[in-house]
Amino acid sequence: MEKIQLPDIQAQRPNTNFKLTRVGVTNVVKQIRVKRPGREVILTPTINLFVDLPSTKKGSDMSRNIEIIEEIVERSTTRPCSGIEELAENMVKLLIKKHTYATYAEIELSSDYFLERLNPSGKKSVERYRLFTRAILEKGKIRKMLGVTVTGMTVCPCAMETVRAVLKEKYPEYADLLEKIPVVSHNQRNNTTIMIEVPQGYSIEANDLIEIAEKSMSSPTFEILKRKDEEEVVLNAHLNPKFVEDVVREALNYISKKYSDLPKETLVIVRSESEESIHKHNAFAERISTLGELLDCQ
Amino acid sequence: MEKIQLPDIQAQRPNTNFKLTRVGVTNVVKQIRVKRPGREVILTPTINLFVDLPSTKKGSDMSRNIEIIEEIVERSTTRPCSGIEELAENMVKLLIKKHTYATYAEIELSSDYFLERLNPSGKKSVERYRLFTRAILEKGKIRKMLGVTVTGMTVCPCAMETVRAVLKEKYPEYADLLEKIPVVSHNQRNNTTIMIEVPQGYSIEANDLIEIAEKSMSSPTFEILKRKDEEEVVLNAHLNPKFVEDVVREALNYISKKYSDLPKETLVIVRSESEESIHKHNAFAERISTLGELLDCQ
Amino acid sequence: MEKIQLPDIQAQRPNTNFKLTRVGVTNVVKQIRVKRPGREVILTPTINLFVDLPSTKKGSDMSRNIEIIEEIVERSTTRPCSGIEELAENMVKLLIKKHTYATYAEIELSSDYFLERLNPSGKKSVERYRLFTRAILEKGKIRKMLGVTVTGMTVCPCAMETVRAVLKEKYPEYADLLEKIPVVSHNQRNNTTIMIEVPQGYSIEANDLIEIAEKSMSSPTFEILKRKDEEEVVLNAHLNPKFVEDVVREALNYISKKYSDLPKETLVIVRSESEESIHKHNAFAERISTLGELLDCQ
Amino acid sequence: MEKIQLPDIQAQRPNTNFKLTRVGVTNVVKQIRVKRPGREVILTPTINLFVDLPSTKKGSDMSRNIEIIEEIVERSTTRPCSGIEELAENMVKLLIKKHTYATYAEIELSSDYFLERLNPSGKKSVERYRLFTRAILEKGKIRKMLGVTVTGMTVCPCAMETVRAVLKEKYPEYADLLEKIPVVSHNQRNNTTIMIEVPQGYSIEANDLIEIAEKSMSSPTFEILKRKDEEEVVLNAHLNPKFVEDVVREALNYISKKYSDLPKETLVIVRSESEESIHKHNAFAERISTLGELLDCQ
Repeated sequence: MEKIQLPDIQAQRPNTNFKLTRVGVTNVVKQIRVKRPGREVILTPTINLFVDLPSTKKGSDMSRNIEIIEEIVERSTTRPCSGIEELAENMVKLLIKKHTYATYAEIELSSDYFLERLNPSGKKSVERYRLFTRAILEKGKIRKMLGVTVTGMTVCPCAMETVRAVLKEKYPEYADLLEKIPVVSHNQRNNTTIMIEVPQGYSIEANDLIEIAEKSMSSPTFEILKRKDEEEVVLNAHLNPKFVEDVVREALNYISKKYSDLPKETLVIVRSESEESIHKHNAFAERISTLGELLDCQ
Repeated sequence: MEKIQLPDIQAQRPNTNFKLTRVGVTNVVKQIRVKRPGREVILTPTINLFVDLPSTKKGSDMSRNIEIIEEIVERSTTRPCSGIEELAENMVKLLIKKHTYATYAEIELSSDYFLERLNPSGKKSVERYRLFTRAILEKGKIRKMLGVTVTGMTVCPCAMETVRAVLKEKYPEYADLLEKIPVVSHNQRNNTTIMIEVPQGYSIEANDLIEIAEKSMSSPTFEILKRKDEEEVVLNAHLNPKFVEDVVREALNYISKKYSDLPKETLVIVRSESEESIHKHNAFAERISTLGELLDCQ
Repeated sequence: MEKIQLPDIQAQRPNTNFKLTRVGVTNVVKQIRVKRPGREVILTPTINLFVDLPSTKKGSDMSRNIEIIEEIVERSTTRPCSGIEELAENMVKLLIKKHTYATYAEIELSSDYFLERLNPSGKKSVERYRLFTRAILEKGKIRKMLGVTVTGMTVCPCAMETVRAVLKEKYPEYADLLEKIPVVSHNQRNNTTIMIEVPQGYSIEANDLIEIAEKSMSSPTFEILKRKDEEEVVLNAHLNPKFVEDVVREALNYISKKYSDLPKETLVIVRSESEESIHKHNAFAERISTLGELLDCQ
Repeated sequence: MEKIQLPDIQAQRPNTNFKLTRVGVTNVVKQIRVKRPGREVILTPTINLFVDLPSTKKGSDMSRNIEIIEEIVERSTTRPCSGIEELAENMVKLLIKKHTYATYAEIELSSDYFLERLNPSGKKSVERYRLFTRAILEKGKIRKMLGVTVTGMTVCPCAMETVRAVLKEKYPEYADLLEKIPVVSHNQRNNTTIMIEVPQGYSIEANDLIEIAEKSMSSPTFEILKRKDEEEVVLNAHLNPKFVEDVVREALNYISKKYSDLPKETLVIVRSESEESIHKHNAFAERISTLGELLDCQ
């Protein structure tokens, strides 16, 4: 039997005259090898992939998107990428190459990411983070963002000082001790996100962003804490009370110092959300700015 | 045109000889009016509905399930139910009536539920809870469960005592004060679930279960807290430190006192989960038992 | 006892010099009455609320945000709002008024929303939709978006034509019938979102956006379908096959006709996502544009 | 400084007299190496871990649970387990050993799992599945369940026959063709779960359960389908229409044949849920039984 000529519906001209901004596939999950400094890492990212579509074309060739993902994944098993930003960059280049009609390509990847940490007593603890990247190729130029979300702990400075004032009123004879020790407050899980543009020719380490986020909260958290460790984390966090506003500003401070040599127009986003233990809702703070704006505030 | 005779595929005999335990619809969302003591409440429950299916029938008549829901919902607009257990009971009865082949019917409802609370300074605060019910009709007998999930706060007693010991070591001259005041610990959001069987002829108030859950945690939480309120909630919670294990036991204690006149075989489930502020994972405790077993421990 | 002077930590000067873009509360859930044409509607929105924060202020007064929500909710019980956009507008105005330091205020609301529909045989069916709004008050100007997400059905036109070609090859003697009837394809749940800016002085009905979304898919879906209805929905959907790209363009077409008298700079976002039955991932299409750009394509 | 004696709060006697059924940690996520036939697999399971707690002990030693997980994970990097059931078995044994007061131990693991498949044209496609296990150690006896959830496709047999009847009425001259070809119906994503007890001394392959689930649906689904593949999947699925009830029965049939040599009391659970394309809710079917009951129906 001769091969049937299959109709190409995607290539037809649509009835309307509207181009589309983003067309693609979402919620693709793959396992990928990435080479990080000194070790190989297995990520399981959720991937969204888009190109634009001209007004003259009814449909995008969506199966090509998945082929591109498979090709990059396959290639990564023999030659691991140096990071997910490189992976994302390779994908948007291939998207533009394979979708010949496209003038825009975008990819989003987000994945669990594991790192070894030392808890207060020096014991090893493998902690979970969230790692993500977004790359856009438009008019021949690539823009990439690298991001992390870190779960840590915040202690409320306002409740602490209110409690201190009340305790000092009640026990005036111990006023000096009550000034020296941290007093009770509410504390809770906090999720802090740092996203930073990775300008072409520069390189940013996700591990550095995680470190900045952890230093900016009242305390990092650990999977394994024996009694003495627990006491140190709790005491340390209370010596370091932070609003979500403080966490964002602290992170901005570290970022503007560490990345001061990046171009001024580099985009920086810092976001912190506390799952308030005394409320059923969350507290939230965010700054979106260029690195230049941040440096002007130093 | 004459009416076409449509084939009845569901009524066909399947190739195999297997009966099915539960067949139905899930994730149906409806808005329902319920009459609570002194007020009318609007719930938006997610509903799952099942009957069994004999080995001789290929398919269940699923559209009937939705008609039953619509009928009960419609009826509730003119004659509000006295509670979601009554609603659930009405539904399983109708399920058995309309699915003539069924010997088993089950329904699950879960919904947001709002209650007014007074915060420490007496200001009104509308708090959100989760309300759910499950009813099973089997061999002519109905079994119903009523449940609530309440978000509150727990303070860790272990970290508090470890910190106290360390502070006393460091400030021996203030040992007496450090015994008197609550010292810092980790605290966090806690979700506590109470489910209790509602025996035929008895009635249980969801609001009572919510009250028990709130009394069993270190502190209830409130949407609105001015500075003085915040201080009271924080201090009160630290005067009342609780493991998840303590929360469950405290709730069991209240339940076995309040419902001591219910039949001994009444099923009781209490579950408490703390979103640990010092870890990325949760702490969990649970007791599943009959009321009789609980009463024997008093 | 005299009233203690409580410290005002939020008002302190922070160590750094960074203003913050958005500070507020997220994941607040409330029940609100809204007046829609001819009926009263109960919504249970999830609410996020933000203001900006100057570099000179350590913390935002977060409890005020919840008080604003409670005030508006309370007011809505006696005088229902005309819609959630009005509600959102009232909230951002109050936010700016109560946070005297703020130059920016933002609110996001999203809620389940129920509407009666008639299925093919004219039977009433209550369908669930998602309704949302976003209002921003900046430099004295308010910008509002109104949006809906509608679940319906898409049938793939590409698979249908490929199947048709194969069947015609196999049954050349029936080629004419195979041209006349819709042949099998894959079909699936589709979620289509329409967001449109509501310029000051204009009014847009959420129900109209829902109607546009439903007309733009292969078929709307219904909770109750008896056998004859089911056949009509299936056949109708297959007579109307649509890529996600087609759904977006169809909706853009309806929007540019219905709202042609709105200002040219009015922002329009249309997004369609199909939960592909033949894949584990989704297909996605989107257009973000001004109304003016759309009108230029007509 | 001498080492301070830290108080052991967990070991204290509680005020009440209630033992607890399950106490432990939930939502722990780790990366684990597992040896599958012919290859090494990286899983990222979410882990829940419990022991019981006697009435005489205030708290469980929760940090030990995480140490047990770390120990098993660590060991797996040098000596990969033969599967997640072995991993789960090792963990419950260690739980009982380290929590000396416990008479019950339980572990739940669930993870994404990737397998290569060949699409209709023989092209390789990496598909995503869900793999899970549960092990309970009680009174010296271990019970293990192994489970998979597989996403595939179902085509409704009822809608197809109703459409066929209507088309035959409309085109009586083509009645014979309309009997020969599959006609249009609704089809959609289906999630089918198979769980089976793994009796001590027996071994069950997760890949076999996945294969059974895929054979029981109207068609498996694939990430990559070129036009001809798509046509084959669609046509094949429509030649094989299935209610959720049919999917469950088909799977029960395969299971009772493949595992007929397992003990009669072996527990079997099969569940199928279709995300109905013509409705906003899902269709659901389930059978819970022993293998013996299934064999009696053959």
